[in-house]
Amino acid sequence: MSENNMFEFVDRLRPLDQAAMVAARHRQDQLTKPRGSLGRLETLSVQLAGILGTPYPKITHKVIVTMAGDHGIVAEGVSAYPQQVTAQMVFNFVRGGAAINVLARHIDARLIVVDMGVAVEMPSYPALIDKKVALGTANMAVGPAMSRAQAVRSVQNGAAVIRDEIDRGLDILAVGEMGIGNTTAAAAIAAALTQRPPDDLVGRGTGVDDAGLERKIDAVRRALVVNKPDAADALDVLSQVGGFEIGGMVGAMLCAAAYRCAVVIDGFISTAAAMLAVTLAPQVRPFLIAAHRSQELGHRVMLDWLGLEPLLDLDMRLGEGTGAALGISLAEAACKTLCEMATLAEASVSDQEAER
Amino acid sequence: MSENNMFEFVDRLRPLDQAAMVAARHRQDQLTKPRGSLGRLETLSVQLAGILGTPYPKITHKVIVTMAGDHGIVAEGVSAYPQQVTAQMVFNFVRGGAAINVLARHIDARLIVVDMGVAVEMPSYPALIDKKVALGTANMAVGPAMSRAQAVRSVQNGAAVIRDEIDRGLDILAVGEMGIGNTTAAAAIAAALTQRPPDDLVGRGTGVDDAGLERKIDAVRRALVVNKPDAADALDVLSQVGGFEIGGMVGAMLCAAAYRCAVVIDGFISTAAAMLAVTLAPQVRPFLIAAHRSQELGHRVMLDWLGLEPLLDLDMRLGEGTGAALGISLAEAACKTLCEMATLAEASVSDQEAER
Repeated sequence: MSENNMFEFVDRLRPLDQAAMVAARHRQDQLTKPRGSLGRLETLSVQLAGILGTPYPKITHKVIVTMAGDHGIVAEGVSAYPQQVTAQMVFNFVRGGAAINVLARHIDARLIVVDMGVAVEMPSYPALIDKKVALGTANMAVGPAMSRAQAVRSVQNGAAVIRDEIDRGLDILAVGEMGIGNTTAAAAIAAALTQRPPDDLVGRGTGVDDAGLERKIDAVRRALVVNKPDAADALDVLSQVGGFEIGGMVGAMLCAAAYRCAVVIDGFISTAAAMLAVTLAPQVRPFLIAAHRSQELGHRVMLDWLGLEPLLDLDMRLGEGTGAALGISLAEAACKTLCEMATLAEASVSDQEAER
Repeated sequence: MSENNMFEFVDRLRPLDQAAMVAARHRQDQLTKPRGSLGRLETLSVQLAGILGTPYPKITHKVIVTMAGDHGIVAEGVSAYPQQVTAQMVFNFVRGGAAINVLARHIDARLIVVDMGVAVEMPSYPALIDKKVALGTANMAVGPAMSRAQAVRSVQNGAAVIRDEIDRGLDILAVGEMGIGNTTAAAAIAAALTQRPPDDLVGRGTGVDDAGLERKIDAVRRALVVNKPDAADALDVLSQVGGFEIGGMVGAMLCAAAYRCAVVIDGFISTAAAMLAVTLAPQVRPFLIAAHRSQELGHRVMLDWLGLEPLLDLDMRLGEGTGAALGISLAEAACKTLCEMATLAEASVSDQEAER
């Protein structure tokens, strides 16, 4: 039995709606502007037409999901922050004080905070969804981060969160995370999938010094040697060197795309999750929008591997979904220009001389 | 008598509020995120603190001004569109069907449309401000685009529009334009001020073919040879090779900065106006925010000359203020994260280990 059968939503994945895309492209060329002059907003609007299945794509329901999990690899001294910051930041999300809370309000999106595997038991909060797989991963430098069953569960749990949101209305999903140590896991995933050396992918994360960076590179190298993740098997990579919030994001992305929602990926860790999602089900790729280029070393390599060009390059490296939130605003702008602008004929504006 | 005395608002220009900037920078470093991890949003928030004169800058009143004017240089075959498109697009702005109308609604900004010098008499509309200096400029390839008195009047008229908006409330101003032929004028201004050859600055504008591009480069070259604009004298450059909407934008930028509003510049033509504004009054520079890098050749040269790094690079080349509108949304996000995020102490989040 294929393990993909564990993910019923994968079977729902369909190609983009080509007819809607052709119609949207045609409409773009009739609008009151030189053809192509809205640049990336035009191509983005056509992609959204294909995802949402209409030449008039409208973004009404916006959701940002921020998934939190802890990482055993912190024992190797790979982060500038202590592990308890993961839980502290989850409290901050729940109370509305983090950057992602502010940006969710700015773009008028629902923010969903999920405990996928924080290392401590969390109190119950209405604003916190409990999908905890375990109290943090094991130290991947000395063995697998999690069991294969836990990897499957993390993907299923992440998908279940989004399935509920679809019932509430969902057109576009931004996928972000929080987890001390998770740039190390993301770099290991990227190294496993791209077969590039860790030095090309490991960066300073939240801000380790030179010695910390060396420990991080060494930790990734050991994790890959000890666990030998199989690059062709996303669940193997996730279980050997991943994280619970990363698995949750994989499930979230696959489920959202399966229900024909646009998926906006955020920074370094979210992009590692997208690489796993595409490895698991390549049909998810056309549903992905890369919001921004993170300042984290290696993000460019990962986006190139995915074949995605980010919309923004603002030297951000916070995660949480902050870059993706800004990307949603651009996606809305793209849809609105496509749908609301007058055509040349409607506005009685002359077309280019060259074409008359 | 200095001609700057014609522009009373120039005397009001003051430096940014350094105390507010220091306090904002300090607050950014206390917020619940790794220091610097919001990248350009952080530096932008500090700039806005300095402009608005408070460590808690708040953007409430947003205005986009789109200034329209015609250009005699179209006689040289420099544009892919006929001159009547300027007036047709002004009608489109007034009726709400253009890209800038859609994006103004998207960011919840007031849109102000100004006739600075459209080549035909325009009917009266409540949504159209009449500040017409003349029925289009003269052909700069054979003589000055306008008289020095007209150049002064265009700057004064542009400033007067913004002075009225300040009374209605104004925190941030996006400056855009419409004018068939105005990429040619903007390239000539940039060539005059940077002393670079026209080939480095002339692009395809709304989409001229190779022959049109050659005509455009030749037109700029002739305009510079015939009129010999004085690079040290912004009003001379404006009168010899400028445009009425460009002069209007110069006045708008200077007046907004004089009243301590942030000024978001748009694409190629708006940036040429910013270069003139900075030449006229260098104190305006810290008030400028470059929204995006236009696809138009030469924009990079102009932004480098100004010392500005654009926020966005979306291959846009429409003008109207469309890129600047997206920039306003980022400026708002920057202010909101600075003002609304919890501090580490408020949220009981641990600071970096390295610093304990």
